[in-house]
Formats: sequence, C-alpha cells, structure tokens
Amino acid sequence: MRVTVIGATGETGSAVVDGLLNSPEVTFDVTALIRPASMSKPSVLRLQDRGVHTTPFDIDKPIEELAAQLQGVDVLISCLLMNETLLADAAKKAGVKRFVPCWWATVMPRGFLSLRDGKEALLDHIRRLHLPYTAIDVGWWYQISLPRLPSGRLDRNLLLYSAYIPGDGSVPSGRTDRRDIGKYVARIIADPRTLNRKVFAYTDLRTHNEVYDTVEQLSGEQIPRIHRTAEEVEAEIAKSKDDPERFLDHYHYSYHMSCDIKGENTPEYARYLGYLVAKDLYPDLHGISFEDFVKETLEKGLEPMYEMNRDVMLKYGTLAFRGANLKDSA
Amino acid sequence: MRVTVIGATGETGSAVVDGLLNSPEVTFDVTALIRPASMSKPSVLRLQDRGVHTTPFDIDKPIEELAAQLQGVDVLISCLLMNETLLADAAKKAGVKRFVPCWWATVMPRGFLSLRDGKEALLDHIRRLHLPYTAIDVGWWYQISLPRLPSGRLDRNLLLYSAYIPGDGSVPSGRTDRRDIGKYVARIIADPRTLNRKVFAYTDLRTHNEVYDTVEQLSGEQIPRIHRTAEEVEAEIAKSKDDPERFLDHYHYSYHMSCDIKGENTPEYARYLGYLVAKDLYPDLHGISFEDFVKETLEKGLEPMYEMNRDVMLKYGTLAFRGANLKDSA
Repeated sequence: MRVTVIGATGETGSAVVDGLLNSPEVTFDVTALIRPASMSKPSVLRLQDRGVHTTPFDIDKPIEELAAQLQGVDVLISCLLMNETLLADAAKKAGVKRFVPCWWATVMPRGFLSLRDGKEALLDHIRRLHLPYTAIDVGWWYQISLPRLPSGRLDRNLLLYSAYIPGDGSVPSGRTDRRDIGKYVARIIADPRTLNRKVFAYTDLRTHNEVYDTVEQLSGEQIPRIHRTAEEVEAEIAKSKDDPERFLDHYHYSYHMSCDIKGENTPEYARYLGYLVAKDLYPDLHGISFEDFVKETLEKGLEPMYEMNRDVMLKYGTLAFRGANLKDSA
Repeated sequence: MRVTVIGATGETGSAVVDGLLNSPEVTFDVTALIRPASMSKPSVLRLQDRGVHTTPFDIDKPIEELAAQLQGVDVLISCLLMNETLLADAAKKAGVKRFVPCWWATVMPRGFLSLRDGKEALLDHIRRLHLPYTAIDVGWWYQISLPRLPSGRLDRNLLLYSAYIPGDGSVPSGRTDRRDIGKYVARIIADPRTLNRKVFAYTDLRTHNEVYDTVEQLSGEQIPRIHRTAEEVEAEIAKSKDDPERFLDHYHYSYHMSCDIKGENTPEYARYLGYLVAKDLYPDLHGISFEDFVKETLEKGLEPMYEMNRDVMLKYGTLAFRGANLKDSA
C-alpha cells in the first residue's frame, strides 16, 4: 500500500511514520513530501535512513504538477496545517484513494473553536470534491496531560502542563500517547470500514481528578489541586477570543471547556457526532497505558516537544493562565 | 410514542402527519404546534377531526414556556423553516428524546447552497446542545419532477415543472412521492439505529432522460428535450447568486447542478456523506412507484401544490429560466 505523508517530521507526522514502518499487519511503502528547502535537514535525512522515500514538494507549483507527484498514491496523510484545500484538489486530480486531512485532535462540535472549524471546512471541501477520506481524531496527548510535580522533577515542556483542573474534575476525556498515533493510523487506513468516516482513536479514558490521582500515586508527591469553574473558563474563552496575542490561551481554554467540562472528548459524544471508535473496530489493539507512560516519564523525564516553538508559545501567552509558580520556572 | 409536529399543515408536514396516523407498526400520539393566530383555520380544524391534538405555540414566548409545552415529547419534528435554533433550545430544556429538524430535501455537501448551509448550521447548533436528533432527506419530489406535456393536459403547478434537462440527462437522482414522506418518517423515528444520524429516504432512482422516457411512454406524447450544459447551469447559478429577486432561480439551478449533474442526490453519495439509507434499513418498505404516480396524474391531474405561494414564486422568478412556452401558460 503506497502511503504519502506530508508533515512527516512533526510531532504527529513522525508518530504516523513510525506506526506505518512498524506495522505488523501491512507493508506500507512510505513517501514523505518535503519542502524543497528542507530536503537536507537532519530530520529528513533520518527519514531516508529508515527507508522512507523523500520527495521535494512545493504547494505553490501548478495543480497539474502536484497531481503528477501524487499519481498512484493509495493514501495521502496530512500532518500539517497548510493549504490543504490545494492538496485535496491535487489528490482528487491524481485519483488518490483516501485522503487523511490534518485533524488529530479532540472530538468537538462545529461552531465552538475556529481552529476546529477550519478543519471541518476542509472536510466540506473534500466532500464537494467527492474525494474519499478518513478524518482521525486521537484525543488529548498523554504528553501534555501531566500536572506539574511540586518537586519540579518533570519540569520540561512546561508550557504544555496542566496547571489547573477545569470544573470539578469529574468529566472523563479520551487520551492517547503521542507515539501511538501511527499504530492506530496503520490499522485505520487499511480498513475499508473507515473509508469516508471520522474515526476517534484514543487509548485512555479518565477524568482530570483521576489523572492527578494516578500521578500522585506513582510519583509519591501530593499535587495542589487548583480548580477553575465552568464560568471562569467561559470568561477566559470570551476574553481571549479576539486577542491575536492570546490565541494559544484561547485554544487551551476552549479545549478544557469542550473536553473537561462538556465531556465532548469521549467515545459517547464521538458516536453521537457520527464517528467510528477505534476501540470498537480493533478490540485487540492496545496503546501504551497512561500508568506505563507516567512510570516511564518519572524514570526518564518527558521527551522534548515543540521545543522549536517555545518562543512562539511564550510570546502568545500559554503561560498567562498557568499561575505564578509556572511563570517562575519557565 | 408522543410525537409533536411543527408546520403540520404544510406540504411536508401534512405528509408527515398522514404517515404517523396511518402507521401500521406504531401508534403515535400526534400533537401539532400551531401559530396562535392560525388555531381556527380550516386546515387546523381538519387536523383536530383526524385525532391530532392542536396546541397554540408562539416561538416568541420565553424559553421556559416553550420548554414546558414540549415536556414529555418523545419526538419533535420540524417541517417549517423558522427559528429552529430556539426550538432546539426548548427541546433540549424539555428533554425531548429526538429532534427532527427541517431538512426534507436532496442530499448535498456543505458550502454549495446557502439554503442547505442554514440547515447544516442548525444541526451544528443541535450538536453543540448534545440534543438527540435525526436529519431526514427525501430527495426530489415526484410532484415537481414532471416535464410539461405538449398537450398541456398536466398544466398545474407550472412553476415547479422541469423545463429543461440538466447536462446530458444521464445522471440518476433519488425521488419520492411527497405523500410517502410520512411513511418513511414513521419507521425512521421509531428506529434506534437512526438516532443521531442522517437518513436518506427515497423511493425511485432514475435519470432525467428516464423520467422523460417514462412520461412519454405512459402519456403517448413526445416531449421536446431541451438540454442545458453544466457550464450553462453553472453560469446561471453564478448570475442569480446575489440577486435577491432571483433566489428561487438560484435554488433551482443549484439543485439541478447537485442532483442532475454532480450526482449527489444518490444513495452512494449519501453513504459517502455518512447517511443511512432507508432502503437498506427497511427493505420491506415500498413507496409509490414513479410509474404509478405518473399514471395517477395522467388520470386525475396534479394535486395543487404551493398554490398560496404562487404570487411569491412568480415574483421571484422561477419562470425566468423556463422559456417562453411556460411563461405563456403560467
């Protein structure tokens, strides 16, 4: 099966490539589309070493050239928020058999968060093209689900820590180890049942309180529990909505509202929205458990994540709502 | 099962009520919500005679009052393009178990026709409310699918006649006798499989050419076949798009493009969009065949339809693209 990935060196894309290369069920012939200027970057050369074909791809080229590059591709996977409209046009022209747009997030209705609505608008475009597709959401990542330990021994990716408990902390939310995304993708894209469907692939379903319980139990540390009410989160969403300097805050609060207060990042709500749920499709497939992830992290520390974007994140204020303790250490 | 219908005296609503009252499978306790000013209209009194409860309902009342009126309702069916957002809010507050919004049209993607997009936006709102729903499309009606006979013997509802063949006429499209809508609705709303899904319920799938063939064969008349190319239809869509005087033209051309040229009003495209298809769910359920409808119409003439809106339709120009022959007789 010929699979082409765009955004293959990013946080999601690299996990997708790993899953495809390591798939026990299907042999995937994997190509990564790379910006011409990035062809000799170390991360791209590492892809080559692992047997991934790398091809320079310039979205500004005429559609005919893009389509020619996609000729014969079975599945095109986008892990990059780019001009995916053009990418879909080219995929249609090339006869790509399945397009996987850049979703990879939590389950959410339309008309709540602009970031999400852009993804839905792309899906509308795909559907107007009659292009076969599968949209995959993976829930919230383990890697950005941890509360900060008082000892500071997990201080890394501080920008992404969970600094407060939205609501009363009793609402379950679906989470996945970032590294498992590709394991799910490999199964989903080889499955005819998932063609022209949305799929929710998550590993762990637990409440915010249970996340804290687990981390406390495995670390032996007691973590202060700071709650923010639904009204407080709502107010922060409204305040940050039209402030371009605070768009990351806005995203973060909105995700908390949707996932941790409204309970939308669950298999029940996903089914309500018409998703298939990976656990229903592949009961034999098990991701890394949240407990194992926490144990590993306590041993080895957190893997670096979005480090190149640290300055951007600092600038756009994800720190703003995290409280003084995090500002100090960041 | 307690079912409440809004718009029960309209073209779709009356068919829905008929189907509920005549259901052989389920006994429905049917209530019609009526504008206070319309409570003593003959059409409303006729509903009462048939055992339908009629209740004055004023959407401008406070939400608490609306919700109180919907208390205990199992299924709320809207057959009226009104402020359905408020209606959905009230339904949520009242704990209505299934809301059927005013869809009742052809299958179509988002972002092509504003009329359709408004219905999709309502569904977004429903989903943000986590309100259980079923959205039902029924395809194009037989009653507005007939070409005009040269003899003029079917001249009625001329505004709604098919005056030209979009494209080469070889694209199939799903059609239903308007009077059968309720038969499908009665099955769909009693079926747990259709909860939180879109359903495409159509009876007949045939091309525009086949419609002409059938009508010619049964009437013994030869019908001139005037084609409009995809490019011509596209140009008319663009020309009428922002002209408020021609919104009906715009709708009509857009439907022709979607149904008769792009082939979107089909079970295949519906499944692609995630719909369930009524024929798959209820293989035992058969609507009136197109042939029987044509025979009956040749005998008895067309039933009156939208007669009260005739002036509006004339004003807003559905005649404009139908050619001089229709203008003469209208």
